[in-house]
Amino acid sequence: MTFPKLAFSIAEYDTRLAKTRAAMDAAGVDTLVITDPANMAWLTGYDGWSFYVHQAVIIGPSGAPLWWGRAMDALGAKRTVYMGADDVFGYEDSFVQNPDKHPMEDLSELIQAKNWAGSRIGLEMDNYYFTAAAYLSLVQELPDAKWVNANGLVNWQRTVKSETEIIYMRRAARIVEKMHATIVERAVPGLKKNELVAEIYHAAISGADGHWGDYPSIVPLAPSGADATAPHLTWDDSELKTGEATFFEIAGAHRRYHAPQSRTLFLGAPPKKYREAENAVLEAVAAGMEQAKPGNFAEDIAHAFNTTLNRLGFEKDNRCGYSIGLSYPPDWGERTYSLRRDDKTVLEPGMTFHFMPALWLDDGGIEMTEPVLITRTGAENLCNTPTGLSVKA
Amino acid sequence: MTFPKLAFSIAEYDTRLAKTRAAMDAAGVDTLVITDPANMAWLTGYDGWSFYVHQAVIIGPSGAPLWWGRAMDALGAKRTVYMGADDVFGYEDSFVQNPDKHPMEDLSELIQAKNWAGSRIGLEMDNYYFTAAAYLSLVQELPDAKWVNANGLVNWQRTVKSETEIIYMRRAARIVEKMHATIVERAVPGLKKNELVAEIYHAAISGADGHWGDYPSIVPLAPSGADATAPHLTWDDSELKTGEATFFEIAGAHRRYHAPQSRTLFLGAPPKKYREAENAVLEAVAAGMEQAKPGNFAEDIAHAFNTTLNRLGFEKDNRCGYSIGLSYPPDWGERTYSLRRDDKTVLEPGMTFHFMPALWLDDGGIEMTEPVLITRTGAENLCNTPTGLSVKA
Repeated sequence: MTFPKLAFSIAEYDTRLAKTRAAMDAAGVDTLVITDPANMAWLTGYDGWSFYVHQAVIIGPSGAPLWWGRAMDALGAKRTVYMGADDVFGYEDSFVQNPDKHPMEDLSELIQAKNWAGSRIGLEMDNYYFTAAAYLSLVQELPDAKWVNANGLVNWQRTVKSETEIIYMRRAARIVEKMHATIVERAVPGLKKNELVAEIYHAAISGADGHWGDYPSIVPLAPSGADATAPHLTWDDSELKTGEATFFEIAGAHRRYHAPQSRTLFLGAPPKKYREAENAVLEAVAAGMEQAKPGNFAEDIAHAFNTTLNRLGFEKDNRCGYSIGLSYPPDWGERTYSLRRDDKTVLEPGMTFHFMPALWLDDGGIEMTEPVLITRTGAENLCNTPTGLSVKA
Repeated sequence: MTFPKLAFSIAEYDTRLAKTRAAMDAAGVDTLVITDPANMAWLTGYDGWSFYVHQAVIIGPSGAPLWWGRAMDALGAKRTVYMGADDVFGYEDSFVQNPDKHPMEDLSELIQAKNWAGSRIGLEMDNYYFTAAAYLSLVQELPDAKWVNANGLVNWQRTVKSETEIIYMRRAARIVEKMHATIVERAVPGLKKNELVAEIYHAAISGADGHWGDYPSIVPLAPSGADATAPHLTWDDSELKTGEATFFEIAGAHRRYHAPQSRTLFLGAPPKKYREAENAVLEAVAAGMEQAKPGNFAEDIAHAFNTTLNRLGFEKDNRCGYSIGLSYPPDWGERTYSLRRDDKTVLEPGMTFHFMPALWLDDGGIEMTEPVLITRTGAENLCNTPTGLSVKA
């Protein structure tokens, strides 16, 4: 069997291309150079750990998307994209990590060969992997182009998920439920953090409900105690301790679609202030979820959540959520709308976001988060993971 | 116990800073803005999964390095860097993924406050995470600066490993040995690829020899059969098959130091052409390793390897190795020297590289690679993993 059979139908890829071309027209872009691996995957089906070298998908004024990258990865492209081999282009290895010539010189030649060199060319200017040097190389090699900042253009086409995308996210949701159940089952005082993370990874990749687990775009984040005031520390071999909280920010993933979810585990009886924080967060989440419905703004969820927290004596001014779906390292957010004041993105059925009520107390943190789907009438938690603090006496 | 106790002594960080400042002088750089998370870690001890937002370490003309990043990650910086809190700066969350203002505006203010705004400022122009938009923001906000491309400047200071670094790499080597032993033990026809990868991850993070496993910078790459012609495909739930080869490109990691190593597993008797390829590679590797000694050039290893392969009837023109050490996603290479024609980097004791003899045949691939340490008199394989093809009848 060819690996991997396409995750979506050709008709769905055609729809995505049409949406993207409409957005390009509206943005005054003739030719779009896409370097975000999630956008590349969404538009073509390309999947591979090759984003550590320069690569791109190019949408020209007409025709199929083109895949361009390192020659050895062009082989991977031919095995994964829906287009034919004529739409796949590979550059020589001598371009790789060579200070004297940049792969973007090769892409520039391709753009010239297609007669797009004088067009309005869109670039994902603030995207991971689109470096300053890549930008300067293109600008130098294509002096007749008119450059347009197209950062986020494709990302925004991805906010409303198709039926198949939602199916994949539900599979990912089953996986993260299993990961959290594994944590609750295995965590005991004295267990080393890395040993627990090894169990989490095993659950993550084994999958759940008959569906295999993909690698999550962020490794399990599992800080304990005072380290939990710093949200992005990874692990070592410190032992879990009675009387300490550990929060787990993890995701199930299937075919690159992510269901992130956090829970906070307490070994022993949580102090009163953790229970107060828990109650406050649960009440604030409920208030936020009441605003999670088609037609409301993203900021309405944040407003209800934050004002409820404030009323209960807690302060929070970070965003409390962001769009999720398909992703590649280093992040599982889609980088479109956020649940935050002033974000007037209109919520629509099929949108999926990570509702992230995190509270950092002065000596620790609690995170109890949910992947959420906007439905026709309101919103639905994708997971059935028990809510609130996880407590093991 | 504070997480994590520093991986290196203060004296070692001081030495690294001195080496870097000497390199800055030679390159005509007064102020260096470092955005590569591995370079940030090497210079300060900073460790965290925060490279999905803009962050940097700044080396000014004098004084300690400064850490700059998102405010919530500044908390992580204070817990991980060797400098004091006065050298750690965090920007407001409103800068994060906001199309209307860029975090580099905040960094520019810091550089101005330090009176470095008119200096010769070095930037890692082709580094992952240093985006086109970040560059343009700095250039706009600091019009008096003289910009210098300092890509690779810090990377090159990392090529010769200290004793402690070599200790960490040996621990990583024990871990990847265990990962390969796990593969040979668990792989059977009918086993799903993701289930095998789950076992590999469990071994990777559990660690070996009493030392915990860190996350590798690249996920396990394990393509089978014809998919192995495309080297960077990840997994799904396809079953392992008799008569098929699977190559595993994996790494053990400890404290971010990596020992990458590949092996090719055959279920059943390998066809004659695989055995011929195996023999050729082993002979070519031996020829390459004879050239792996202080005073030789990196290209000498590649030359011996490639000419031997050619003599035996196989063609290979990719590079056959690269420097390794400390790394973060998306890559475990250090991006300095390569084992490739025209690379005249002089080999020195303490250098560590991934010797990557990979051969892609028309219907599959074999990879049998080694992490290698240059010693005072020659070279040493860091791992004891059995050489050659792995075969399970």
